Amino acid sequence: MNALEERILKEGRLLPGNIVKVDGFLNHRVDVGFLRELAREFKAHFGEKKPNLIMTVEASGIPLATVCAEEFGVPLLFAKKAKSDNIEGGLLTSEIMSYTYNKKVTLIVSGEWLNEGDRVLVIDDFMARGEAMRGLAKIIEQAGAELIGIGIAIEKGYQGGGDGLRSSGIDCYSLAIIEESSGGGIRFRERELG
Amino acid sequence: MNALEERILKEGRLLPGNIVKVDGFLNHRVDVGFLRELAREFKAHFGEKKPNLIMTVEASGIPLATVCAEEFGVPLLFAKKAKSDNIEGGLLTSEIMSYTYNKKVTLIVSGEWLNEGDRVLVIDDFMARGEAMRGLAKIIEQAGAELIGIGIAIEKGYQGGGDGLRSSGIDCYSLAIIEESSGGGIRFRERELG
Repeated sequence: MNALEERILKEGRLLPGNIVKVDGFLNHRVDVGFLRELAREFKAHFGEKKPNLIMTVEASGIPLATVCAEEFGVPLLFAKKAKSDNIEGGLLTSEIMSYTYNKKVTLIVSGEWLNEGDRVLVIDDFMARGEAMRGLAKIIEQAGAELIGIGIAIEKGYQGGGDGLRSSGIDCYSLAIIEESSGGGIRFRERELG
Repeated sequence: MNALEERILKEGRLLPGNIVKVDGFLNHRVDVGFLRELAREFKAHFGEKKPNLIMTVEASGIPLATVCAEEFGVPLLFAKKAKSDNIEGGLLTSEIMSYTYNKKVTLIVSGEWLNEGDRVLVIDDFMARGEAMRGLAKIIEQAGAELIGIGIAIEKGYQGGGDGLRSSGIDCYSLAIIEESSGGGIRFRERELG
């Protein structure tokens, strides 16, 4: 069991509707020193592929993606979920279903900041059905950039998003994969190392 | 002239409506290594006050606040702008006017993560009229916590938000304060050191 799995068991709770609540250290009162350890694991896995850009979606993925960007020594770009008057120029967009909010949202990146030839590593804190990840993949393709992999802290394996991405050939690497839980317990998928 | 002011002059642009666009390194294609330098300046100014929590507002303030949290060795808490189904328990809220989006938005923090006695340093990338900062100050007060200071990367001095906060006794420290610009140029306020 790795450090993240241990921490999930210690602090995480399952709420009704299979919502995994680990806000305490991952996306509310965020333990940035711990995110640094996770970033190092992503560096060990993805470092050889030499990404030149880290991407994520606002808002809860940003702290982890920020630390990863510094760890890889590359810039951070995050997709917004609504049009801001501050974004000028050509927009890259992708409509996705947000099951957290139960509505469609549009991911938006200004074409100015994502370029042909960029080697993009996508980082996010959580993945369930993988909608946001597919949306980012589409935006990266629109820009003529290359998706070199997806790094997730906690994947809800029983929702199938990660396996879908992996079966389409994407290097999707999750540090903890929660399988279907019953009786209030949390069970992790055995991980292949590396 | 400090490093941030130099970079604003080099990469920043003024758009119509006095919008300062420095997305290139501060809040779109974010240079996290540079944010680390800014975080060290905040540490030098606020370190003695020993904050035990960094707060910001989603989304564009999160990268800088994340790096600051790691620099100070304390957790990061960010206020959301819309109610998420993932937030349970008592909510601390404050309604503010967002001039970026020209509508009222509600800042939300779960009371679970902000406690009486917390010594809070608020960090944000930009400040104009200071609405978001007043909203956070109100939330911190609701929780019985203490606002020990506000650190801003770029303040638009001519919009008065920072001076309003300072005149009410808050230690509001901005790394670059842009004064009214004319003829397309950007002029900075002379800073007192320390």
